[in-house]
Amino acid sequence: MHNKQYNIDKLYEAVAEKGPVCVGLDTAVEYVPVSARRGAARDADAVFDYNRALIEACGDVAACFKVQIAYYEELGLAGLEVYAKTLKFIRECGGLVIADIKRGDIADTALRYARAHFEGDFEADFVTLSPYMGMDSIEPWLAYVETKGKGAFVLMRTSNKGMRDFEYLRLQTGGQLYDAVGDKLAVLAERCIGRYAYGAFGAVLGCTEREEAARIREQRKNLFFLIPGYGAQGGAAADAALLLRNGNGGVVNASRSILKAWMNCASSADPGLEQAASAARDAAIKMRDAIRVAVTRTSEVAATGTAQ
Amino acid sequence: MHNKQYNIDKLYEAVAEKGPVCVGLDTAVEYVPVSARRGAARDADAVFDYNRALIEACGDVAACFKVQIAYYEELGLAGLEVYAKTLKFIRECGGLVIADIKRGDIADTALRYARAHFEGDFEADFVTLSPYMGMDSIEPWLAYVETKGKGAFVLMRTSNKGMRDFEYLRLQTGGQLYDAVGDKLAVLAERCIGRYAYGAFGAVLGCTEREEAARIREQRKNLFFLIPGYGAQGGAAADAALLLRNGNGGVVNASRSILKAWMNCASSADPGLEQAASAARDAAIKMRDAIRVAVTRTSEVAATGTAQ
Repeated sequence: MHNKQYNIDKLYEAVAEKGPVCVGLDTAVEYVPVSARRGAARDADAVFDYNRALIEACGDVAACFKVQIAYYEELGLAGLEVYAKTLKFIRECGGLVIADIKRGDIADTALRYARAHFEGDFEADFVTLSPYMGMDSIEPWLAYVETKGKGAFVLMRTSNKGMRDFEYLRLQTGGQLYDAVGDKLAVLAERCIGRYAYGAFGAVLGCTEREEAARIREQRKNLFFLIPGYGAQGGAAADAALLLRNGNGGVVNASRSILKAWMNCASSADPGLEQAASAARDAAIKMRDAIRVAVTRTSEVAATGTAQ
Repeated sequence: MHNKQYNIDKLYEAVAEKGPVCVGLDTAVEYVPVSARRGAARDADAVFDYNRALIEACGDVAACFKVQIAYYEELGLAGLEVYAKTLKFIRECGGLVIADIKRGDIADTALRYARAHFEGDFEADFVTLSPYMGMDSIEPWLAYVETKGKGAFVLMRTSNKGMRDFEYLRLQTGGQLYDAVGDKLAVLAERCIGRYAYGAFGAVLGCTEREEAARIREQRKNLFFLIPGYGAQGGAAADAALLLRNGNGGVVNASRSILKAWMNCASSADPGLEQAASAARDAAIKMRDAIRVAVTRTSEVAATGTAQ
């Protein structure tokens, strides 16, 4: 046991306090209320204004935020300026932020990427990484666990249709590709175990497929999960609950269903930023509560041995 | 046969004219001669000054340039400004540029990434992509073949030690993971075949492993290869030659051995930009000629059936 507090420990505590919702700021400009867009000099500024309102409104409901960099790269240099401002604002508010960048490259290059996303303009608390090129593309990021408490989530089994193309391929030695990735990640996690028995490096584990969820959760005790696929991608609270343990050990991301919640409010076709952010907050609370109910149900089923 | 010219066709023609060298602009600031660094206001500006000198000096030797975005992300917003300027300068000079970004994400996100790197500030002629999440993470990029002639190289078998972790895993149905990726890429390439029978979407195929090179080249006739691993990573001209066909069908990337060539010149411990760029040009010529010799030798061996 060590005394240092990793970001993964802070995340565990945030989940214990606020629930497992990760608010995804995949903020396309078309998700920003029209009136707020009109007030902004550039599209990117409208995105930041909405992000700020969302971060303020959801701060006590979101265990963390996840910022998908593609939506900012799409807006070019102005977009990346706003990406940097968004990360900074989250961290200034005391929030935790996952940079969803899915980088993966040879060790020399990975070291540059690690500097880019764990220091400087784009400093985040966690990143997402892609394992295709192997563990030497992950290693260089690991140095930042000890120096700055950083963490990462490595793609294991995602939530998209295409995951069946490669992630599900059966291996000659048994298991599927994602199992092989999970094996390596479990070893990695042992090297950076935090206070709550989860490694600073965890895995991306989608909640769109129910069958193997309980098995994977049971098998990967030291992996904290970043769980995509909820809401717009089809995953339900019951699916997400299977990937948690006592309601912790993972964060469940939702982006569009939260960012676009204002579009479903009959009260206003074109709300102001605060009203839109309030709708987002309501959506996040609803999601949190649905997962809490599902977690309770899952543990009851487990306790009584009743099939669902 | 269609009349449209894809970037992959232009690249084929560039290789026929200039040889298969791809100059990698992984321009860390420490690769820039010290005197040139002193003259620049910011590190990022020194990087751009060196890039410009390199692009001008190597224009007639390089079939294309590859810009590794990690080295620019490392310098934050200023770095990405210079990344954008570098791509623009290459294209203004009539050169072809591969954005080495290795992105890979769900379809909605991939679409944003495609807009980011095939339009606007970061517009490139080609990108590199990671296949882990499956073909729906590649699909959205494909629309740009028809509209703008764009192309991509998808990671198949890379050049780093870690490739053995997953890329080499044997599948229950036969072959290795990289073969399964190759199968999907070959189908994809058929959907965007250019004038010279290579698809606009090709593969990243490292030249550090010799055993399977000839087999893979023979098997993947419609895949144009982006070939990393030459020089600093250990690959030799003979290895690279095995991945070409008649000296074409691929570009061989070298970054550090070209960017840092000036460090091996006895004539000057701290050369000016032009002198450093000239050393880079000499290194690129030497590399081109070595590969040409190896290509000739490979085809002679193939013709006479003589074992090497």
